[in-house]
This record gives sequence, C-alpha cells and structure tokens, in this order.
Amino acid sequence: MEAAVATVAFADRLAEAVARKRSQLVVGLDPRVELLPVELRGDGDADGCARFCRGIVDAVAPHAVAVKPQSAFFEALGADGTRAFEDVCDYARAAGLLVIADAKRGDIGSTARAYAAAFLEPRSGSGSLADALTVSPYLGRDSVDPFLQSCRLHGAGIFCLVKTSNPGSADVQDLALSDGRPLWQQVAELVREWGEDLVGENGLSAVGAVVGATHPRAVAQARKLMPQAVLLLPGVGAQGATPADLGPAFTSGPAGALVAVSRSVLYASRETGGDWRAAAGAEAARTAREVWSASGW
Amino acid sequence: MEAAVATVAFADRLAEAVARKRSQLVVGLDPRVELLPVELRGDGDADGCARFCRGIVDAVAPHAVAVKPQSAFFEALGADGTRAFEDVCDYARAAGLLVIADAKRGDIGSTARAYAAAFLEPRSGSGSLADALTVSPYLGRDSVDPFLQSCRLHGAGIFCLVKTSNPGSADVQDLALSDGRPLWQQVAELVREWGEDLVGENGLSAVGAVVGATHPRAVAQARKLMPQAVLLLPGVGAQGATPADLGPAFTSGPAGALVAVSRSVLYASRETGGDWRAAAGAEAARTAREVWSASGW
Repeated sequence: MEAAVATVAFADRLAEAVARKRSQLVVGLDPRVELLPVELRGDGDADGCARFCRGIVDAVAPHAVAVKPQSAFFEALGADGTRAFEDVCDYARAAGLLVIADAKRGDIGSTARAYAAAFLEPRSGSGSLADALTVSPYLGRDSVDPFLQSCRLHGAGIFCLVKTSNPGSADVQDLALSDGRPLWQQVAELVREWGEDLVGENGLSAVGAVVGATHPRAVAQARKLMPQAVLLLPGVGAQGATPADLGPAFTSGPAGALVAVSRSVLYASRETGGDWRAAAGAEAARTAREVWSASGW
Repeated sequence: MEAAVATVAFADRLAEAVARKRSQLVVGLDPRVELLPVELRGDGDADGCARFCRGIVDAVAPHAVAVKPQSAFFEALGADGTRAFEDVCDYARAAGLLVIADAKRGDIGSTARAYAAAFLEPRSGSGSLADALTVSPYLGRDSVDPFLQSCRLHGAGIFCLVKTSNPGSADVQDLALSDGRPLWQQVAELVREWGEDLVGENGLSAVGAVVGATHPRAVAQARKLMPQAVLLLPGVGAQGATPADLGPAFTSGPAGALVAVSRSVLYASRETGGDWRAAAGAEAARTAREVWSASGW
C-alpha cells in the first residue's frame, strides 16, 4: 500500500475552479480528423489532432473548468494517438484546467487496477494523466474499487455512467426492476454508496455520475438520489438539450453539476466562420454564461 | 458507406480453427510487469511485455485458437504500451491465431464508431488490429451498432459482456427485473437480437457473449438464451472454475464456446519451474485437452 499523498480532493479542486471562473463548463475534446481546420491537415493525423486540441485548450481555458478528452478518437490513431492524448492532457493541466479522461473503463478488479494506474495515478517522472475518469458500472463494486482507491490516495475523481444521453440508453438503463424503478436509479444508489466516504470539504464526493442532459426529468431525479455526487451532463448543443432545463441539477451547490459540450464549441467556426480558436472561445464563453445563469448561482 | 469486403465471417474462421486444432482454448495476454521473467526485466517495461507476449504466442500457438490481449496492461505503459499492443496483435495473427482484443469498450454511437475503427477495421497500410473485441452493453443498441457494422463489412466479431466472472457482477447484472429474471438474462436477449442477422455458415453469430465460467448455472442458461452466440468463458484457473463444469456450453457445436485462461498459462513456470515458454505451452496443451474432453466433441 502506498502512503497517502497530501493532495486536495478532486471535488474541492473542482469547486474552487467553478467559484473562481463562475463556470460549470466542460469542453469535450473529440478531435475528428475529417473535421480539423484545413491548416492542420497533412501534419500526420495525430499531430494535427494534438495541435487542434491545444488550440482549443488555449481558447476555452478562461471559460471552462475542465476539458474532457475522448479516448476513442485518439485510440483510433494508434500509438501516435496515445502520445497525442498524453500531450493534450498535460497541456490542459498546465493551462489550469482539470482533465476528465472520457474512456468509460470497466473491468474485473485486477484489470481495473491497471486502468486506475493508467489514468489516475502518478506516472514515472510525472503527474497523473487525468484528474478524473469516466467509468462503467456494469461489472459492479469490485470493478470500481481500484478507482475509489485512486480517489482516496491521489485525490482523483470518477464519473460513473448512470443514465446516458443517447437514445439507446433505454435498452438497458431503463429496464424496470422488480420494485418498478428503472435500472439506472439503482445504479444511482450504488454510486451514492460508493462515494459516501469520499466526500470533500465542500460536501461533494469524488464519485460523480454521468446523466444525459437530454433527459431533464432524469437529471432532477438523479440529483435527489445522489445529493453529494457531481453530475456530469453531456447532451447540450449538438445532441439537443438546453441549459435552461438543467437548473435542478445545481441544488447541491454551484459545482454540483458540470455541463459537457463538444461539437458546438470545437467546430463553432463551421457555423460562424472566422478563426476556429476565436469561434470556439466565443461559443465556450456564451455557453458558460448560459449555464451559470441557469444554475441560479 | 464502404463497399463490403469479401471476407470470411469471424465465427466461421473460428470454427475452422477449433476443428483443425481440436481446441477451444483462448489464452489471455495480461502482461504484468512485476511478474515478467527476470530475463525480460530492465528492457523498458513495454518492450519486456511485448517480448513476453511474443514468447507466449509462440508457445501456445499449436494449442490455442486465439489470444486475448488485455488492453489495460498495455495502456498502463503509455504510448510505448500501445505500440506493444499493436506489435503483439500483429505477431499473434501472423502466428495463425485469432486475436480477441479485451478492451470492454462501450460509448455513444459516434464515439463507438471510432472504437470500431481502432480495433476492428483495416488501418492505413495494414490489416485490422484484432479479429474481435469485447464490448459493454450498458449504453444499448446504438452504442453497439458501429461494431455490428464492422462485423458485417469486415468479418469482425464482438463479445458482449453479459454475466461476468467477478463476485461484484451480482451488483448490477443480477438485479431482479419486473418479471423476476435477473438483468443479465435480458442483456442475453439483446445479444441474441443484435446477432441474429450476422450468423455465419456454421450457424454461429458474429455477436458472442462473455459469461463467467465461475457461474456454471448461468453458463447453461446463457447457452439456451443465445443458441447462436459464441460464449467466451473466463474464470477457469486462477479464478477457480473448472472445465468439467462447462459441458453445457458446447451444445451449439465445438466452436460454440471458448475457454479463456490467463494467469495459469502465462505464469505456469512460477508453479512448475523450468523455462517459462515451455511451462506455458505445456499448461496450454493440458488445458486445451481438458476443455476439448469436457466439450464432448
């Protein structure tokens, strides 16, 4: 067992950033090679993606509290993509942003330990890759324990999939249990349990939950079921949800929920024209203000 | 939309290999740096892991139909680990083994598309990384569709998590639905549906299922619920299950189930002494014979 490292809990670092920036915005970094600005094409896909993400980080850093790089788009580029992912995570942390690695990992305990080390624990010669990681609950408590250990020892955070933003989420997550509740509400109970001894000084836990902003009623119910969880809410923008529907998510405090947007910020210049960085920055600022206003803080 | 490539369906390639080798053995490649043979330490962790896995591939190729590299252990080594993962996959395919990438991916459709491309579709200048991929069902049908497209167009396969081998699998997978069945049985129904138009010439589908050999009753029930699915059965060996319990899994044919073992083969020389490759080969041969016998074919 490693010695505990003196570190600030993830939720407390997050709450500090939310208060300082007056923002609950998380910008998803989903670099799609075919959508990169023309000037970044032809550098090698991974290098172009890294340069794009660094430009977005620079543009959104004043307006967002975190970025959420999506591992899949980097993995699709092989080892160079992995290096680009590491580069982008390091660059974002240096820019004062929290990094939520969106990888949705979940495996049996001994394997989950390797994932926890990969994403959430100090690497040889440097800090951890990310501050927090999205995880899948399907394998149950022992598959989450290694991540909880990272939270406890290294001040990391996790966001567990509860009710996702996509239409197909109904197939499994909405199945009716014997007591009539949909499955996702029982997963929410598990998330609450997993996080209850990892609550920071501001009353929020290191164990958060992913709930699709595309399901506003579920967001309000999730808030009640997991009062100490930070809710990570994707689905605003390209997927159709609007910040105005999300007020109930913020009753646990200004950092009680984060709104994640990707395409509407990353590719803003495709709508507005002009410099892609400036367009992304302006859209991030606009969304952050809209969310802050909807949060009621 | 890409044109369909003339290729043999995954389940048909698998059935051919099973019949030719008289084996349903899959060797999991879980390279743990701290367990590597002394001679492979100090090369740089990723290089040592790659050399270890290549040695295991050589040793088990006559006895196993597939290897199952576990992505987590490679991801924990950063970009060098990704390169080692690619190297090991290519090496195993060149040795005539099928490759089942154990990465348990699952995300919304546009992201799942990137994962499908990363693991199951031809890369620029070379073939696909793997023949099949483990996937998580929690996000539902639209999260699986991109992988089904890889099956249809590129002859890939997937193994969907249904009832996993770990104790914590009960937390979510055994939740009682309104009709009294455990959740995993409904997931099994979904897997059957997802695979029903991807059935190969031998009657087995490209959409298989992961069911823990540690739950022999569930294995027998899963066989009935998904008669055309290839069942991937982990849990034999270090996790305590025995091949003798698994006979019912094989009623759909000799390739209807695969038994996945990792630690008992990889680290066999820690029990038996002697050369690590020879020990792994002997343990693989022994396990393959035991499984073949239990299968009744």
